[in-house]
Amino acid sequence: AKLWGGRFEESVTDAVEKFTESISFDKALYKHDIMGSRAHASMLAHQGLISESDRDQILQGLDHIERQIEAGEFEWRTDREDVHMNIEATLTDLVGEPAKKLHTARSRNDQVCTDFRLWCRDSIDTIVSCIKHLQVSLLKLALKNDGLIVPGYTHLQRAQPVLLQHLLLAYVEQLERDVGRLQDCRARMNFCPLGACALAGTGLPIDRFMTSNALGFIAPLRNSIDAVSDRDFVLEFLSANSIIATHLSRLGEEWVLWASEEFGFIIPSDSVSTGSSIMPQKKNPDPMELVRGKSARVIGDLVSLLVLCKGLPHAYNRDLQEDKEPVFDSVKTVIGMLEVSAEFAQNITFNQEKIRTSLPAGHLDATTLADYLVKKGVPFRTSHDISGRAVAVCVQRKCQLQDMSLEELRSISPVFDEEVYDFLGVENSIRKFSSYGSTGTECVASQLNYWISKLGIK
Amino acid sequence: AKLWGGRFEESVTDAVEKFTESISFDKALYKHDIMGSRAHASMLAHQGLISESDRDQILQGLDHIERQIEAGEFEWRTDREDVHMNIEATLTDLVGEPAKKLHTARSRNDQVCTDFRLWCRDSIDTIVSCIKHLQVSLLKLALKNDGLIVPGYTHLQRAQPVLLQHLLLAYVEQLERDVGRLQDCRARMNFCPLGACALAGTGLPIDRFMTSNALGFIAPLRNSIDAVSDRDFVLEFLSANSIIATHLSRLGEEWVLWASEEFGFIIPSDSVSTGSSIMPQKKNPDPMELVRGKSARVIGDLVSLLVLCKGLPHAYNRDLQEDKEPVFDSVKTVIGMLEVSAEFAQNITFNQEKIRTSLPAGHLDATTLADYLVKKGVPFRTSHDISGRAVAVCVQRKCQLQDMSLEELRSISPVFDEEVYDFLGVENSIRKFSSYGSTGTECVASQLNYWISKLGIK
Amino acid sequence: AKLWGGRFEESVTDAVEKFTESISFDKALYKHDIMGSRAHASMLAHQGLISESDRDQILQGLDHIERQIEAGEFEWRTDREDVHMNIEATLTDLVGEPAKKLHTARSRNDQVCTDFRLWCRDSIDTIVSCIKHLQVSLLKLALKNDGLIVPGYTHLQRAQPVLLQHLLLAYVEQLERDVGRLQDCRARMNFCPLGACALAGTGLPIDRFMTSNALGFIAPLRNSIDAVSDRDFVLEFLSANSIIATHLSRLGEEWVLWASEEFGFIIPSDSVSTGSSIMPQKKNPDPMELVRGKSARVIGDLVSLLVLCKGLPHAYNRDLQEDKEPVFDSVKTVIGMLEVSAEFAQNITFNQEKIRTSLPAGHLDATTLADYLVKKGVPFRTSHDISGRAVAVCVQRKCQLQDMSLEELRSISPVFDEEVYDFLGVENSIRKFSSYGSTGTECVASQLNYWISKLGIK
Amino acid sequence: AKLWGGRFEESVTDAVEKFTESISFDKALYKHDIMGSRAHASMLAHQGLISESDRDQILQGLDHIERQIEAGEFEWRTDREDVHMNIEATLTDLVGEPAKKLHTARSRNDQVCTDFRLWCRDSIDTIVSCIKHLQVSLLKLALKNDGLIVPGYTHLQRAQPVLLQHLLLAYVEQLERDVGRLQDCRARMNFCPLGACALAGTGLPIDRFMTSNALGFIAPLRNSIDAVSDRDFVLEFLSANSIIATHLSRLGEEWVLWASEEFGFIIPSDSVSTGSSIMPQKKNPDPMELVRGKSARVIGDLVSLLVLCKGLPHAYNRDLQEDKEPVFDSVKTVIGMLEVSAEFAQNITFNQEKIRTSLPAGHLDATTLADYLVKKGVPFRTSHDISGRAVAVCVQRKCQLQDMSLEELRSISPVFDEEVYDFLGVENSIRKFSSYGSTGTECVASQLNYWISKLGIK
Repeated sequence: AKLWGGRFEESVTDAVEKFTESISFDKALYKHDIMGSRAHASMLAHQGLISESDRDQILQGLDHIERQIEAGEFEWRTDREDVHMNIEATLTDLVGEPAKKLHTARSRNDQVCTDFRLWCRDSIDTIVSCIKHLQVSLLKLALKNDGLIVPGYTHLQRAQPVLLQHLLLAYVEQLERDVGRLQDCRARMNFCPLGACALAGTGLPIDRFMTSNALGFIAPLRNSIDAVSDRDFVLEFLSANSIIATHLSRLGEEWVLWASEEFGFIIPSDSVSTGSSIMPQKKNPDPMELVRGKSARVIGDLVSLLVLCKGLPHAYNRDLQEDKEPVFDSVKTVIGMLEVSAEFAQNITFNQEKIRTSLPAGHLDATTLADYLVKKGVPFRTSHDISGRAVAVCVQRKCQLQDMSLEELRSISPVFDEEVYDFLGVENSIRKFSSYGSTGTECVASQLNYWISKLGIK
Repeated sequence: AKLWGGRFEESVTDAVEKFTESISFDKALYKHDIMGSRAHASMLAHQGLISESDRDQILQGLDHIERQIEAGEFEWRTDREDVHMNIEATLTDLVGEPAKKLHTARSRNDQVCTDFRLWCRDSIDTIVSCIKHLQVSLLKLALKNDGLIVPGYTHLQRAQPVLLQHLLLAYVEQLERDVGRLQDCRARMNFCPLGACALAGTGLPIDRFMTSNALGFIAPLRNSIDAVSDRDFVLEFLSANSIIATHLSRLGEEWVLWASEEFGFIIPSDSVSTGSSIMPQKKNPDPMELVRGKSARVIGDLVSLLVLCKGLPHAYNRDLQEDKEPVFDSVKTVIGMLEVSAEFAQNITFNQEKIRTSLPAGHLDATTLADYLVKKGVPFRTSHDISGRAVAVCVQRKCQLQDMSLEELRSISPVFDEEVYDFLGVENSIRKFSSYGSTGTECVASQLNYWISKLGIK
Repeated sequence: AKLWGGRFEESVTDAVEKFTESISFDKALYKHDIMGSRAHASMLAHQGLISESDRDQILQGLDHIERQIEAGEFEWRTDREDVHMNIEATLTDLVGEPAKKLHTARSRNDQVCTDFRLWCRDSIDTIVSCIKHLQVSLLKLALKNDGLIVPGYTHLQRAQPVLLQHLLLAYVEQLERDVGRLQDCRARMNFCPLGACALAGTGLPIDRFMTSNALGFIAPLRNSIDAVSDRDFVLEFLSANSIIATHLSRLGEEWVLWASEEFGFIIPSDSVSTGSSIMPQKKNPDPMELVRGKSARVIGDLVSLLVLCKGLPHAYNRDLQEDKEPVFDSVKTVIGMLEVSAEFAQNITFNQEKIRTSLPAGHLDATTLADYLVKKGVPFRTSHDISGRAVAVCVQRKCQLQDMSLEELRSISPVFDEEVYDFLGVENSIRKFSSYGSTGTECVASQLNYWISKLGIK
Repeated sequence: AKLWGGRFEESVTDAVEKFTESISFDKALYKHDIMGSRAHASMLAHQGLISESDRDQILQGLDHIERQIEAGEFEWRTDREDVHMNIEATLTDLVGEPAKKLHTARSRNDQVCTDFRLWCRDSIDTIVSCIKHLQVSLLKLALKNDGLIVPGYTHLQRAQPVLLQHLLLAYVEQLERDVGRLQDCRARMNFCPLGACALAGTGLPIDRFMTSNALGFIAPLRNSIDAVSDRDFVLEFLSANSIIATHLSRLGEEWVLWASEEFGFIIPSDSVSTGSSIMPQKKNPDPMELVRGKSARVIGDLVSLLVLCKGLPHAYNRDLQEDKEPVFDSVKTVIGMLEVSAEFAQNITFNQEKIRTSLPAGHLDATTLADYLVKKGVPFRTSHDISGRAVAVCVQRKCQLQDMSLEELRSISPVFDEEVYDFLGVENSIRKFSSYGSTGTECVASQLNYWISKLGIK
């Protein structure tokens, strides 16, 4: 019989029980459910709502249950619907009457929100630490490839030369904002719903500040209806995860490209590659393909939750039971994506030789040439035009800008002088960059130092 | 060691193995994988690519494996990556050399597509039969409530009276189009990828028409690259499911509303209701809330797959491994939604008394009054205006249109005569409807007969 | 001819020009584009990259262009592609040579990001002020309905009595978190990309801190590649908007329900209602239906941007041109939703009489009864059970809990005494609530005061 | 004053009028609205509900209005809300009384659905013809590059050689299924809602079959509630569009890759390329980047509509006004994507020389080698292993498989004989493919002929 069965004469059908159960997934909340019950029982005793002996029996029972669960010896029963009812019912089996008092001044509505916020809070901490690990891995990869110049792309066309370190730090920057979003989300969700009960609070003399403190929340939520019915904290969390996943999907794309025969920039080690069941020569960067692909489910999870919440009236609706699986999936997926990206970063080698020999292609120094002209006093639009015409000559002659004679250059514009050759070629280009945040050697060195210190790398 | 390990010197790291494995979910394809392998082995033997004895050992081995799996005795190994490799490797353990020939002229790329199309095809058939069951349940509910007039709503405001049967048949119509979409999708996906191999086909003398026929496909797919790299068949399937889910979310919303104290139109039986852990008087229509809510994950699954496929170059990419879980989830969810909706339909009673007494509210006959005026030759816009003014009088006097005296009506327009009372009141309204597809008694009766015959109800 | 046309021999086809143009929508950025150009020109002059006379001519030209645009006299040309090229080309028409120097040490890649961040920053400020306006409107609505008790719902079933004020404050709380999200987003996006140029920075001696300060940014972005290629700031913004929209969709649903004949809680004034083209008696709460419905496009806009960014390699890709329309649409829609919700709040009257007479339905005091029993020392689970049985009697007898005689109550449990009647009825229920954040009279009054002071209402 | 204003005393506020108007976008339906009104007026006259003279004046008035609109001389008024009211009110201005009879037995609810289905039907026809045009363009591109071998990829790693024609035909196949989806959708939506009126039909003696025929529908919809409240026809349409967009995003990705310096397979003409405002040497394949990027909005549009419809009760709700803009946007975008893809296909040249010289990289013939071994009687798994070891030798020695001496090969497996060289090298590989649907020369030629004939190319 259900714990809420008082006025019910018939039990639910099997199909309904199966469709409405949540125990198959919400048991993941067991640790936080027990944590919440401990705090609640202690508060009830402190307020004189239950006796100290009741409390002690409850606490001992909860300890026992937690050990059982962690030993894999707890029997999860679908007829007991969810994690809350499973634990409470088992507690009643264990300690009897005192257990029946645990649900005093509490409803599953505030209980599940409390558990879920605690779970999300822990998950955010885990994700943040995985992000840091990836940042460190990217930074170490940068340090291993000091001075390596790679083509910078726009429109996937070679644009300007950049230091590989500069590109890797772009990811580090993006991940740092991801951390910021998670931390803001954590701070905003770290308020306690416990004591909001079904939706209206209670007339029993509870102390919500005591439970809130015990559970590490900043304060109790101010409005009981809001407390049990809003899920904006998970929407925000899954949004942050979706942005992380989008960032990683770009890293995935980039590294898949770089591992191709055509780019050939990186060589993943066997330990992060897989082969083909039919083509014996294949060595595929599968982990990064999956990083790219798994971004899709993180986005899908967010969409599910937005659709779920759309148009629901106050306060709690059973629809909200569907809030958990997308979050569990999003968290697990993002953690996996971060871990595997870090592992990949640790297991690739840059093919410096191939990169270097391919650098002349694409006239990466054309913009530096235009800057040279600007320094000579030519208006930018005219400089751009002159450079463009010089490139056109090179394309036709299949040569590089630095291969053009001064005479040839001067036939395009009389402004050119010998000094121009100090601006041509990718190494010169890189040397010339000087603006804050640019790919110039010193600028990048200074950024590297910033991150080495910030991430505590030795 | 992996089956593709030939040129590999290191095995993948644990994190990569865990991140890239699919066996935890793609084992759901085991039956169709074995089915495909049987057809393939028979074809290979028929074409002389393996011996008849090889084929027989393979077939016996597959039979054995199938029985093991169904008995729960098969050991699924993560180091064997996926369902295909698990079955093939176990087959090799069982029958030795012949098993090593099974993958002749086949790749996992075409194999998984074949399995997946077979699985989807079966799932479509299951969903179609669940839809039929729900249609029958709705129709039976209609037959039980012959003649019951309910308010028809627009903007959730009472608009015109309709027969409950008419409203229930609206759902039957929508579900019928859902069936149509699934059938079109099934027909379009029912082509065989087997023999496309990795992406380019093979030089071995296989007979793709033979395997296609054996597996019940219409024909082999015409282009091997297309065969292994497109997933439009699942995008279409999940789109069809999303539309079904959207339809059911509307039914869910409607029935949740109707079960409220305020509407009070339906009384769900205890067998499809649940209670509250804190509020003893509650009896909640949870199954229909979850039907509404679970539409969110079906939509999320579709979005995942669209995002997944976006921007992938040809041919197979590992991202596509992520195509399965959203489909499995979508199918399971839609089936549950359909089953529970049918069960709910079978377990609700209409509160005819309450509905009848509430019918006067809302001036549902105002449009019939306007039609009366049109019949009298008043232009529609003028009729609408006159009716509107009559309603305004009723609102002020808190009465019904039929409560107005002829004199009062004539003070609004001299066109009114005694006959007007034959058009007022919801029963008269319903009687007057006569257009094809309308809620008029005879129109609805004829539609009911159409569906009784089409759905084969006795 | 395009400004970038140097090496091009053919101009693009009409179809390509039409497909790739952005001027039809990105002209919305004109004010921020001009603002950015002013800061850039001033910095160039300060750094000696252009003369003071050049700068002055540029600034005067920009002033002129801004006035032209605001007077509707500016000719936007599709062959000039986008807002940046339109303004720069017109500036060249106006002031000649100096204009050709404006694009020195700048690319459209950093320019558009700068404009867009400035535009988003302003939009956030507008949305925040619309939210405040809605909060004030809700609070004033609460103040107008002091003491009004309404049913609190879970599962759309009547659960417990709550003060209307308490419910309205739940929305105020949610909106406050929405403000917090926007402010966090604003702070995180308020960094300056200008000077990142195409992707790599520049070798010209610019001062990025000067432009950053002039434009009110906190600092220049640290990494030029990151600066031009990431769009996480709009993803975060659209996520925040989607959460706002989801909140408002719930308000929309609630008020549509409440305006129905069946609930009848609110009466919208004619000024926020619309009628029917066919049914003269209809008065529909269309604005709130559209608030609910328009949440869909805000969510769709977010999804568009997530899909857009998925899998793009560094740095800038033309795909990113598609980042603007969803943001423009999201912002416009959210502002409209907020404004109209506020207007609706100001134009509804609560039907206090109807609400009061309907309150007895639903046994809203059953939980208070259970609390009474807990206070008497009965374990909660047993109290819940006793209350449940009392309700069952009431359901059968069609009476209220307070209509039961003490004798009847004691036949269910001997614990009952006279004092029980002090706990029955919704007014008593409300009086009993005392926990922090609950719907108790004093708790709500204290929350009201908090918000009156915080929102500065007189 | 609104046409529905009968019982209203106050007009709506400006903010509400602006928020709820639809004329700014639904005027796109004008042609189909007039078409529907013509059919409706003719039917009303035929049924004796209006006079022949009324009908003639209405028809003349509608002709006049249509001409005005097409000449850009029609005044669209926001205070007249939508396209229907604008046209009807102007008609009344023009012809007086008869116009007031046009809305007899019609509501905006059935009217808008009729218009919208007609509009979607036409749009489907347009999209189908754009698809055919793209298919033809791809086919012609294939014919221009007869015999060109390109690397086939899986995991973006070179896998096996394929004929370019084979790859282009894969797109043709996918587009053909897209046509099929649109045609199924068209057939399912081609039923007429007109006469369903507000939601319940009418008591006036209309002939719905007559209007349905006149408008080219298959038949009137069977259920009036279903007719006005379901939007599954647009959900299905936008799903089909999303799948098209996903296909095109893949084409976009592929061609962006191929246009890169690293791949260098295609050279887009200047007429489909754009340049950079800062980097003079750039020539970017922007149209295909935008094809890839614009897939995002097509997917976003679908999501909007799914979210919109989720959880709406019957029948019409004002939310549904939001159904149009996403559809208009989706249609316009998909047409643009198709047109520009076709134009791009017509304006690229394959760099046959570069492709040919790069073909040796990647050991594309390794699978053909394994097939050779299978033909020699080696079990496939063993063949795969032997080939894998041969490739490993090549990787180490930086040579091709065909560069290995027979002795070297035999040191790996004694099975090798002279004939092996007939299987090595990409040309041999291509020649060996023979399975139906494979990339073998004859197979592809036969597929080309199939499509040439099907698409009617001369």
